[in-house]
Amino acid sequence: MLPDGPVKLPYKLKARRSGIDTGNELVVFMHADCPVCRSEGLRAHTRVLLSFNHHKIVATAHHVYSDMVGMDEIALSESAWRHLDPKPGELLTLAHAPALPSLSAVRGKIYGERLKGTDIDEIVADIVAGRYSDIHSAAFLSACAARPLDPGETAALTRAMVGAGERLTWEFPLVADKHCVGGLPGNRTTPIVVAIVAAFGVPIPKTSSRAITSPAGTADVMATLTSVDLTLPEIRKVVEQESGCLVWGGSVRLSPADDQLIRIERALDIDGSGQLVASVLSKKIAAGATHVVIDFPVGPTAKIRSENDAGHLIGLIEAVAGRFGLEVRAIRTDGTQPVGRGIGPALEAWDVLDVLQGKPDAPNDLRTRAVALAGALLEFTGSVAVGQGTAQADAAVSDGRAWAKFQRICEAQGGLREPPLPGLSRDVPAFASGVVTEIDNRKLAMVAKLAGAPEAVAAGVTIHVRIGDRVSAGQPVFTIHAETAGGLHYSLANMAPLDEIIRLGSLE
Amino acid sequence: MLPDGPVKLPYKLKARRSGIDTGNELVVFMHADCPVCRSEGLRAHTRVLLSFNHHKIVATAHHVYSDMVGMDEIALSESAWRHLDPKPGELLTLAHAPALPSLSAVRGKIYGERLKGTDIDEIVADIVAGRYSDIHSAAFLSACAARPLDPGETAALTRAMVGAGERLTWEFPLVADKHCVGGLPGNRTTPIVVAIVAAFGVPIPKTSSRAITSPAGTADVMATLTSVDLTLPEIRKVVEQESGCLVWGGSVRLSPADDQLIRIERALDIDGSGQLVASVLSKKIAAGATHVVIDFPVGPTAKIRSENDAGHLIGLIEAVAGRFGLEVRAIRTDGTQPVGRGIGPALEAWDVLDVLQGKPDAPNDLRTRAVALAGALLEFTGSVAVGQGTAQADAAVSDGRAWAKFQRICEAQGGLREPPLPGLSRDVPAFASGVVTEIDNRKLAMVAKLAGAPEAVAAGVTIHVRIGDRVSAGQPVFTIHAETAGGLHYSLANMAPLDEIIRLGSLE
Repeated sequence: MLPDGPVKLPYKLKARRSGIDTGNELVVFMHADCPVCRSEGLRAHTRVLLSFNHHKIVATAHHVYSDMVGMDEIALSESAWRHLDPKPGELLTLAHAPALPSLSAVRGKIYGERLKGTDIDEIVADIVAGRYSDIHSAAFLSACAARPLDPGETAALTRAMVGAGERLTWEFPLVADKHCVGGLPGNRTTPIVVAIVAAFGVPIPKTSSRAITSPAGTADVMATLTSVDLTLPEIRKVVEQESGCLVWGGSVRLSPADDQLIRIERALDIDGSGQLVASVLSKKIAAGATHVVIDFPVGPTAKIRSENDAGHLIGLIEAVAGRFGLEVRAIRTDGTQPVGRGIGPALEAWDVLDVLQGKPDAPNDLRTRAVALAGALLEFTGSVAVGQGTAQADAAVSDGRAWAKFQRICEAQGGLREPPLPGLSRDVPAFASGVVTEIDNRKLAMVAKLAGAPEAVAAGVTIHVRIGDRVSAGQPVFTIHAETAGGLHYSLANMAPLDEIIRLGSLE
Repeated sequence: MLPDGPVKLPYKLKARRSGIDTGNELVVFMHADCPVCRSEGLRAHTRVLLSFNHHKIVATAHHVYSDMVGMDEIALSESAWRHLDPKPGELLTLAHAPALPSLSAVRGKIYGERLKGTDIDEIVADIVAGRYSDIHSAAFLSACAARPLDPGETAALTRAMVGAGERLTWEFPLVADKHCVGGLPGNRTTPIVVAIVAAFGVPIPKTSSRAITSPAGTADVMATLTSVDLTLPEIRKVVEQESGCLVWGGSVRLSPADDQLIRIERALDIDGSGQLVASVLSKKIAAGATHVVIDFPVGPTAKIRSENDAGHLIGLIEAVAGRFGLEVRAIRTDGTQPVGRGIGPALEAWDVLDVLQGKPDAPNDLRTRAVALAGALLEFTGSVAVGQGTAQADAAVSDGRAWAKFQRICEAQGGLREPPLPGLSRDVPAFASGVVTEIDNRKLAMVAKLAGAPEAVAAGVTIHVRIGDRVSAGQPVFTIHAETAGGLHYSLANMAPLDEIIRLGSLE
């Protein structure tokens, strides 16, 4: 029964599931001629507050001029439906979206003011509750990239992100963790490090991210090998049994604000230093870590471009970690070229398997780096004598303890499976003969992304050369892999010129 | 007939009009199980390139899990439908969205690099073509606010914005225009200035904006009095006949990039100086102006907060205008308190009518300011002797020439009508007695916006006091007007504390 005259908010409308998947953006659809749109003059793109039982969301309202939604109904995107969790036809309460006072702080930050701790708490709470539209989140991230967060702001953001999510607690006296700031394609040491450290009985409950701006994150790689979206009780069981796990952090909501922001960061391909530190440390703190080793690859086309930048970021991480009683050891590594052979979720998984299984053609650089990081973590946690870490870690790979542990961890997470093989491949040959002098990590990673990685898990690039190698004209320098002909063509059509990806010097 | 096996892009799908109005964001809806989503692994929120005849758009693709769209169909938002203009069932070609090289320049700007002219051309072209999502546009605007554009960047942005739109040319040897940088509620001088200047036979083809972050723009106010969305030939006819017009700039696409960005600026409530100058000058240049007077209200809560800020902005405007051969005269005015009585589209229209009709209770401050600006423009264009501008402009109001001209302009635009009256009003009384020492323009404007202005054209605020006035406890200091009970309650519930909007000093 529709009212004749004007109606006022709050107003009740019947829930309808639209079946439209808008990602994690919350959207609702209302008939343009429904009583509330007419009475309130709601325009397309208005933000509204919708509540049901104790759930509340702020969503963008779109007008509909078809019978997709009735005059007494409101249709919800899949994400909005999940948040409110009504049954079809149940009455939802529609109201004006609250004003967002935290946006004043975002504006202030854009214009150069410092964010106060309470500002940051409000911003993070608004983001987690879905009260920020994409526009607001993009402005917040851009402001934090343009006006880098100082240690106090970064600590406040870290604390707010931890506070907004779940938190793991462990009975163990110490809990190890590792992280890589990224930017180096193929640098997939984490599964190997976790297998080694856990083989020594040191607890290492590893939660990893999906890729932000790279062709693969550790969670993307592990998802090709086993289940990574475990619940908190499942993670606890795996770690208590095997000392380690390799799961996706997003499924346990350790830092839901960060999970929300990742989609926006990905679209913009930006990652400010304070934002990066808060993202890393919030997840380590929420995961209950006490000792963390962080890999800092430094190179002109890595995420960290110079020793100077590395020093700044390490200083910020150490300053902030100290405020939370977290022990951090930063390890600077060579970031001039990719690690291993594969770039892309499944391709990197195959490299990890080759190292753990001691295959004769396993990529040695990947093994060396993983063993060094695991060794540092074993020494740092007091598990092996100082000076013995690397040798002991290497022995655990050589004698198969790490591979055995890796298999048990995957079995405990739901079973180990073979990563998929790419459906379509195309070699990219050198134009001329010469010596490889430089490899552009970013442009090479972009080729893998254009081919479909990380969404297309079998897509990516295999690199066949390293700096210092001699190549002959016509010899393949890398191979593009894709799941579809579209991905392959798109990558070939849009990749940077070959001599900007792999630079050759003369042979004399 | 659906294919059995995998398909590849480009791929053709039947056009369906979704009837969903997503504002000017371009969105398409595809069935999650359609051949192309399955084959290409398209995810929700993927950007796709859609083409039909010679039209191309980049849109955000949402997945649908209902029968809203068939397996061989693609449903378009109203904005996407308008851009491509197909007939239902016609075949549209779907392809991967092109990579957006201009985003590298946006990222560079965020990190402090200068934008090159070619970067800016590409960014503006991408925005106008709809290739930027809200996320990208928000990052661009945030970057330009955080890292202010220098005169070269601002000139390049101005040029790119002019180049992306329509351009008016006139037979007249000189063409007058006026602008106000805004931030002062109720400062609706434009309709009065145009009426006066046109009454002297000086061509003044005025195109105005809708509100960006304020409760009303001149186009919003004029839309309550006459038609403002005229075509280019219609504008030309009005100006040739009456010397002046008062139309909305957006309908003639003088600066479509600016029109696209306004929605994002509004959501963020930011307005960077370079962006502001480019927005103003691009529209003046595109409108064919040769002489422009710009009103700069300066006050602690106006858009321009200090003489220093005014000097910076005036310097930037003069530097950039000079590159385009545009004569600009900046006039600094008092920006400490609102002008006139009404704040909101219809309320300000009533003030304008009262001044033009010479009503005894017409707001004198509005008349004084309009007459001063019109006088400056008359002197500046050589239409009256230097030193005579203000007196001559004032005489044109007093003897009814301005009112007669205003009526003829409105008639030529399609007829003069009465602005609507607000449906609901509520007085806000002073808590205590005292003398008004400060009025916060921003917080007062926010009350009008919370009440529904500018979308609700009759909504807003009427202010009853000016700085220096004595008030008694309980005496109304302003009145909130709304079109709906929801707007009224929302405004009352969310407005700033009264003593932050209107500050009272002791009576001694």
